[in-house]
Amino acid sequence: MRDLLLDLHLTTRKQRGLEAALRDAIRSGRLSPGDALPSSRGLAADLGLARSTVVAAYDQLASEGYLITRQGASTRVAAGQWIPEPPAAGRSRRDYRIDLIPGEPDASQFPRAAWLRCTRDVLATAPADLFAYGDPSGLGDLRTELAAYLRRTRNLAVDAEAVIVVPGAASGLGQLARLLRASGTTSIAVEDPGFPFHHAILGREGLQLVPVPVDAEGIDTDRLAATAATAVLVTPAHQYPLGAVMSPERRARLASWARQRNAWIIEDDYDAEFRYDRHPIGALQGIAADRVVYLGTSSKTLGAGLRVAWLVLPPELRQAMAEQRGRDSDVSQLTQATLAHFIARGDLDRHIRRMRTLYRTRRNSLIAALRSALDHPDIHGISAGLHLTVTLPSKAHEEAIIQDSLDEHRLALWGLNQHYRTQPGAHGLVLGFSRAAADFDTSLTQLAQVLHAH
Amino acid sequence: MRDLLLDLHLTTRKQRGLEAALRDAIRSGRLSPGDALPSSRGLAADLGLARSTVVAAYDQLASEGYLITRQGASTRVAAGQWIPEPPAAGRSRRDYRIDLIPGEPDASQFPRAAWLRCTRDVLATAPADLFAYGDPSGLGDLRTELAAYLRRTRNLAVDAEAVIVVPGAASGLGQLARLLRASGTTSIAVEDPGFPFHHAILGREGLQLVPVPVDAEGIDTDRLAATAATAVLVTPAHQYPLGAVMSPERRARLASWARQRNAWIIEDDYDAEFRYDRHPIGALQGIAADRVVYLGTSSKTLGAGLRVAWLVLPPELRQAMAEQRGRDSDVSQLTQATLAHFIARGDLDRHIRRMRTLYRTRRNSLIAALRSALDHPDIHGISAGLHLTVTLPSKAHEEAIIQDSLDEHRLALWGLNQHYRTQPGAHGLVLGFSRAAADFDTSLTQLAQVLHAH
Repeated sequence: MRDLLLDLHLTTRKQRGLEAALRDAIRSGRLSPGDALPSSRGLAADLGLARSTVVAAYDQLASEGYLITRQGASTRVAAGQWIPEPPAAGRSRRDYRIDLIPGEPDASQFPRAAWLRCTRDVLATAPADLFAYGDPSGLGDLRTELAAYLRRTRNLAVDAEAVIVVPGAASGLGQLARLLRASGTTSIAVEDPGFPFHHAILGREGLQLVPVPVDAEGIDTDRLAATAATAVLVTPAHQYPLGAVMSPERRARLASWARQRNAWIIEDDYDAEFRYDRHPIGALQGIAADRVVYLGTSSKTLGAGLRVAWLVLPPELRQAMAEQRGRDSDVSQLTQATLAHFIARGDLDRHIRRMRTLYRTRRNSLIAALRSALDHPDIHGISAGLHLTVTLPSKAHEEAIIQDSLDEHRLALWGLNQHYRTQPGAHGLVLGFSRAAADFDTSLTQLAQVLHAH
Repeated sequence: MRDLLLDLHLTTRKQRGLEAALRDAIRSGRLSPGDALPSSRGLAADLGLARSTVVAAYDQLASEGYLITRQGASTRVAAGQWIPEPPAAGRSRRDYRIDLIPGEPDASQFPRAAWLRCTRDVLATAPADLFAYGDPSGLGDLRTELAAYLRRTRNLAVDAEAVIVVPGAASGLGQLARLLRASGTTSIAVEDPGFPFHHAILGREGLQLVPVPVDAEGIDTDRLAATAATAVLVTPAHQYPLGAVMSPERRARLASWARQRNAWIIEDDYDAEFRYDRHPIGALQGIAADRVVYLGTSSKTLGAGLRVAWLVLPPELRQAMAEQRGRDSDVSQLTQATLAHFIARGDLDRHIRRMRTLYRTRRNSLIAALRSALDHPDIHGISAGLHLTVTLPSKAHEEAIIQDSLDEHRLALWGLNQHYRTQPGAHGLVLGFSRAAADFDTSLTQLAQVLHAH
């Protein structure tokens, strides 16, 4: 185990400072997957901290998926989860290939020509106001287009007044968490397994996370009701990472739970535009617009580089959110006007249709690769979205496959187990099929080789 | 005094809820300048709140400039300050004209053709990565261009690593305030008079504001040193609102104060691109890059609708800020790449030169109008920036002129006195000359009429 040079001199809250320094070391590649960390006793002595501070920091990072702690064994850097996404510029980073990491569309498919045409139209016709301070909730034209789009494609009960334009789902979720915290919410239920990065955002705003198990129908509403949580974050259209579509019964139960308890449901509808083999299922918001905060994004359709996402707020939260957000929008009005025009012209629908065809083909290739390598693979979540999950018999299998993919092919993978907050969870891989395509077929071949060898 | 229908049912923190409801009523025009509010006793009884809650809310809004409280008289809505800027879409708003309110460039002058050309170039040549998640601190190309621009035009000691791209100065200031608060800072000194909206941002993040007087050389560093503050927000290039340029001696003292106390200086360089009759003076950051956080923006040069601003951070704060900001940028990478190209082509310099000529002409017209209406007017801050200050003999003069401009000409003005946190401050007007030009000459004529009549 190598020496750790951690820069701690600024942050006065020592545990937070240690967490930050370790996270940074992992993200930047100074600590690698599988690396053993110093014992808590040893690191505490080195840094002049209390041992309990180091233990607490290790626990926090383990719960965020950066570290693996085991009774009686060294704390180690988790494989997979830590992979910087995106690589921070100017930082040393190994040359991982992240072709099969879920979460991003194929950036090479951005509709450049259509976007340029829309930009030209907007610049030619927009009133001067577009270049001045605008409505902090978002440009009226875009909110109107988004409301219509969400009514039409996702069955939302929404008008323009309910929509707030934000730079990303993470930003929107952070603002929501802050709002809930300020209005007295202390704990929020999250799906287990779920999306660690979103859990981290909620935790940073001071909310306590209450993990609730997920089954084939979605979040377990009985278990949810048994907690004290007054808010919950769910992914009804395509549970992340397991891929379940929340059943109608669970939807109804979730809505009545929220109404009885005066609780808030955050619906993260991150990739619902993409479905392949089933009828569209409307958003949960459509049956509980009074209790659901809906979160949507252009990051999975157009690309995260655009930085446009949206919240749909129930009436009761709107004034408090406006107050918290203050006077300024945080999204370019020119970008907003261009996207509004892009939607109005039908360019977004066209682009999604085209991408759906492309992603369906890639999904089929991935499924074929898994079937070629594994006997009767247990594959979940294939009817929609941009990723699927394949389970594996044991934690050892999962870890070996991730490690071998990295060592033999520089191919980074996300393990399923790292998505669980409560152990032991299931084991397997969470595989995206929507990233840039150059190496996609190679990646599939290599993945199949590694799977076959185990 | 009319009835107040205030919607309080959500916010559980009652004082905050009352403040929010009142602020909203003022901003939306349901309460007008000069309107008397109910007595604290009466409103407390109506709303079922403790009287102390109402008093505390009134005090808070008075310190933010929304209300005027006077011993033994009704609490009233302040004139001027409350004017919604920008008007919130979908809200009822009176048809004020805000031609002479400071803070925004002439939106009709946005360089549409050059911006379109740069967008086209970027869309034609950018790698696919531009449309994916990027560096949360900002696009490398833009950080490099901004660093070069700031070195060249503002004498900053800066490289690309120090630059963080944010959606606006307010957003950047809020993030800084949060960072300082989290690292143990409890109070921050601010210039008195200063910019109430920025004070409100600092307050919202939990920092206690310590007003420090300003004279013709800038902030009073002796008075600053006598406070317990470990951070200060200053406007050295063009003090807002009084217009002083901070003297070399004060700059040196401020830097040594910060070093001795391990304190942070936030330099708000909001309109330094525009100077007319004097040599350029470099940013304070150039002599104290170790203790200064520099805040710059495109909102005063290109327009606030673009939502691009920048922080320059000293080395000691960078890791903690990166940690706080998390994984996602909050500014479109396409916008960032376009702005980088715009700067690299020289388009920004060209635009600023053109606008400087335009604004100098308007400034001269404003000065001429003031001289035509007032005997030897006491005018400050004319050598730079996008506003000037003219003092008036008394509070009564200030209030009457603001009220008459509104009543007779629908012309909204900002009073100087509202910028003071400690009373009694000076009286006068803070007049911008950079907004949309359609009515500019008419506004000047009307202002001169009103001034002449008092």
